Amino acid sequence: MRNHPPSAPSSEESLALSPKFNEAGLIPAIAQDAETGEVLMMAWMNAEALAQTLATRQAVYWSRSRRELWRKGASSGHTQEVLDIRVDCDQDTLLLSVRQTGAACHTGRKSCFYRSVTDAESLDNRSAPPEAS
Amino acid sequence: MRNHPPSAPSSEESLALSPKFNEAGLIPAIAQDAETGEVLMMAWMNAEALAQTLATRQAVYWSRSRRELWRKGASSGHTQEVLDIRVDCDQDTLLLSVRQTGAACHTGRKSCFYRSVTDAESLDNRSAPPEAS
Repeated sequence: MRNHPPSAPSSEESLALSPKFNEAGLIPAIAQDAETGEVLMMAWMNAEALAQTLATRQAVYWSRSRRELWRKGASSGHTQEVLDIRVDCDQDTLLLSVRQTGAACHTGRKSCFYRSVTDAESLDNRSAPPEAS
Repeated sequence: MRNHPPSAPSSEESLALSPKFNEAGLIPAIAQDAETGEVLMMAWMNAEALAQTLATRQAVYWSRSRRELWRKGASSGHTQEVLDIRVDCDQDTLLLSVRQTGAACHTGRKSCFYRSVTDAESLDNRSAPPEAS
């Protein structure tokens, strides 16, 4: 038995996976590059996406715009091999450690987080889009 | 003028900050340790939290449970100095690069992501809670 603070809610120390999906049945999933630590993207999973990700070790998300399961890289080839999945203290967010093939972002950049907020109105682009071929 | 693909939606290459808040007026914000790259937590910001974070360079979130602005570390002392804020391609997620004082997680651990998903039912605890004092 593990030593944990007596006041901790069971969900914080439990070793049972019980992800908290939101009212739309979704949970946010952050994808982080396993080698560089770079945060690549955030997307959403429903229970089936999570189950398929666990079963195949390839990232599967739920596309909110297309309203369908989205096997990352199915059309682009930019797949994500999932090396580890973490869940946070209250089990309402997932963190995936992935081996990314190609670009995680649909703009062609490695990461979706290519712009830095400089003030309340402006952004600075830290990574140019790939040249049009 | 920057060279970008002609088909790119303006929100993807725009240098105007226009965060997409959800129907509850919130946007997810991922906090990453600036030195180690460790993902520490994910929380939510409303427009005011983001404005205060930008103005003070200290992380301010919106507490969904308490329904109030939550200056990280105000009671615990575990503040987050914000070195950089990134926004993703469709401007619906923020990524904060922070200098974390003490533990980011309310359980006393550095990161909220201390449990690894081993299968569809089980977790493995990778970081024990601090000893009760």
